[in-house]
Amino acid sequence: MRVTTIHAAGDIRLEERPEPTIKAPTDAIIKITAGCICGSDLWPYRGENPVTAGSTIGHEMVGVVEEVGSQVRSFRAGDFVIVPFCTCDNTCPHCRNGAQSACSNGGFTTGGQGEYGLVGQAEGSLVKTDGMPDADLIPSLLTLSDVFPTGWHCAVSAGVKKGDTVVVVGDGAVGLCGVLAAVQLGAEKVIAMSRHESRQEIARAFGATHVVAERGAGGAERVKEITGGVGADAVLECVGTDDSMRMAFDIARPGAMVGFVGAPHGITLPVRQMFDNNVGLAGGMAPVRRYLPELLDLVTSGSVNPGLVFDSVIPLADVAEGYRAMDERRAIKVLLQP
Amino acid sequence: MRVTTIHAAGDIRLEERPEPTIKAPTDAIIKITAGCICGSDLWPYRGENPVTAGSTIGHEMVGVVEEVGSQVRSFRAGDFVIVPFCTCDNTCPHCRNGAQSACSNGGFTTGGQGEYGLVGQAEGSLVKTDGMPDADLIPSLLTLSDVFPTGWHCAVSAGVKKGDTVVVVGDGAVGLCGVLAAVQLGAEKVIAMSRHESRQEIARAFGATHVVAERGAGGAERVKEITGGVGADAVLECVGTDDSMRMAFDIARPGAMVGFVGAPHGITLPVRQMFDNNVGLAGGMAPVRRYLPELLDLVTSGSVNPGLVFDSVIPLADVAEGYRAMDERRAIKVLLQP
Repeated sequence: MRVTTIHAAGDIRLEERPEPTIKAPTDAIIKITAGCICGSDLWPYRGENPVTAGSTIGHEMVGVVEEVGSQVRSFRAGDFVIVPFCTCDNTCPHCRNGAQSACSNGGFTTGGQGEYGLVGQAEGSLVKTDGMPDADLIPSLLTLSDVFPTGWHCAVSAGVKKGDTVVVVGDGAVGLCGVLAAVQLGAEKVIAMSRHESRQEIARAFGATHVVAERGAGGAERVKEITGGVGADAVLECVGTDDSMRMAFDIARPGAMVGFVGAPHGITLPVRQMFDNNVGLAGGMAPVRRYLPELLDLVTSGSVNPGLVFDSVIPLADVAEGYRAMDERRAIKVLLQP
Repeated sequence: MRVTTIHAAGDIRLEERPEPTIKAPTDAIIKITAGCICGSDLWPYRGENPVTAGSTIGHEMVGVVEEVGSQVRSFRAGDFVIVPFCTCDNTCPHCRNGAQSACSNGGFTTGGQGEYGLVGQAEGSLVKTDGMPDADLIPSLLTLSDVFPTGWHCAVSAGVKKGDTVVVVGDGAVGLCGVLAAVQLGAEKVIAMSRHESRQEIARAFGATHVVAERGAGGAERVKEITGGVGADAVLECVGTDDSMRMAFDIARPGAMVGFVGAPHGITLPVRQMFDNNVGLAGGMAPVRRYLPELLDLVTSGSVNPGLVFDSVIPLADVAEGYRAMDERRAIKVLLQP
């Protein structure tokens, strides 16, 4: 089968590899309907994370069950499933506590930018749709694999509640999904920090009430103006850099929470500022499975359309160009069709 | 009047100074019934915070209103009042949001280790008792000025809820009050980390179900054992050092919150560990006024006896010895009688 591999920073290839096979009785093999490139894939692509030459890359996918191991009872060949990027048995103490991304038996799906994916702990991880979904629903269903629940987790971690004023730092696909999540969780004002017109448009489509194009001190100033000098009730930090984290703490009102879901790169947390202002921080890798039933309902009922974050749909064969487009910010998020 | 001053690290004096006078119409002057030494007073005493030579020190007190400014309507001479260490108008947006320690018009009370204290924003800050309290209630009422609400804030910030397993790191007066708060908030298991027998006893009196004397890796190991390998639902970090903060994150289960209320000294937050384990951090300077009505009820009804943290009651004249006793950990917390 064809699957995407990374050989070094900037070196993305589509290669022939053997199809995955069931190794554990809890495994499932998925024939991928759609995969995509994650913002986190850009860290190794940009050389900011180490690369194991020739390793496959890609962890987001939806598709049709091809084969399941003997302990997988709720799914069978032909089911259309959402594949969370992190797998879980959904029964361990951490899963039962809503921290499925820390499952005692968890791991990561592989092969997402290819033709077939391998999913461990399939019984606990997968969620299926009622029958085969319409083609136009595929992009939104694909966001359920990672990016939408990640934005949702950021909003939940930041404690977003009805009537809140929420600021979203970062206008990548996760940040845009954070906007959507904040709106769905009842925020009254949702301020998207974004300089890019195409991203601003999606933020507005997701329900952002304000867009702030300024960054740094100027951006914080604008948020202060919009909030009458008070600051935000909740801030969603959806980038993972030191600058964006500092911005997040600068615009949070005393007593607020900052949610964060971007793998931290070079961040030094301002602990004294957090203490002085009583601003907390919570988040991490999203426990996708926890949110899936609720978010799948939102998608299939047509209440939300997170698939809008895919502004580029390309054949799997063009995956290397997809990486370039995301790296150069020509694309927000790239959907790959095997 | 006599009031405690600090001239340099280790140099505590009781000096004659003029009695405070009403400067703003929102001020009140309090004749102090009891004051005390705070763990945070030890930072300058130990030379770990800068000292302005000759400045007064002490911010916790209860006493009788002596005089009020013209805008103070709810209190008058003769009222017995709890004086929060941080003052607030209790009407600004931050106060209305429960972040009274960040009040737009807030400040700190002064003269707490003396005969008379000056309180700004008295109308919003003070809370009075029904009539003059019995002498044996004074220590517990005095804890309401800072240490009990601070422990409470730690537990609230850590999200302690019914049935939780909670670990308290730090067996100072704040940590002990954290134990009491966790128990009152419904925690099922409360594990006090303490090596000192006298402190262990108070922790048990406050409802701790377990005491762990080991520190560092050994302490984390014991907590893991007690929690069946899972970790704590909530951790109260009541010290403020890097070691104690690391311990707190090491024993928190995925998805847990660490509460912190000790002014941070030399802390580097483990942001990657926080992300990987989905363990958050929240807290800061306690919004005392927010909790006072509830906590005053607990004290006056006899439901709790936080005054147990005062294992030393001495005349104000001996304040310098009080500092030595706390510095050398011979005393948990020293109550000063003017």
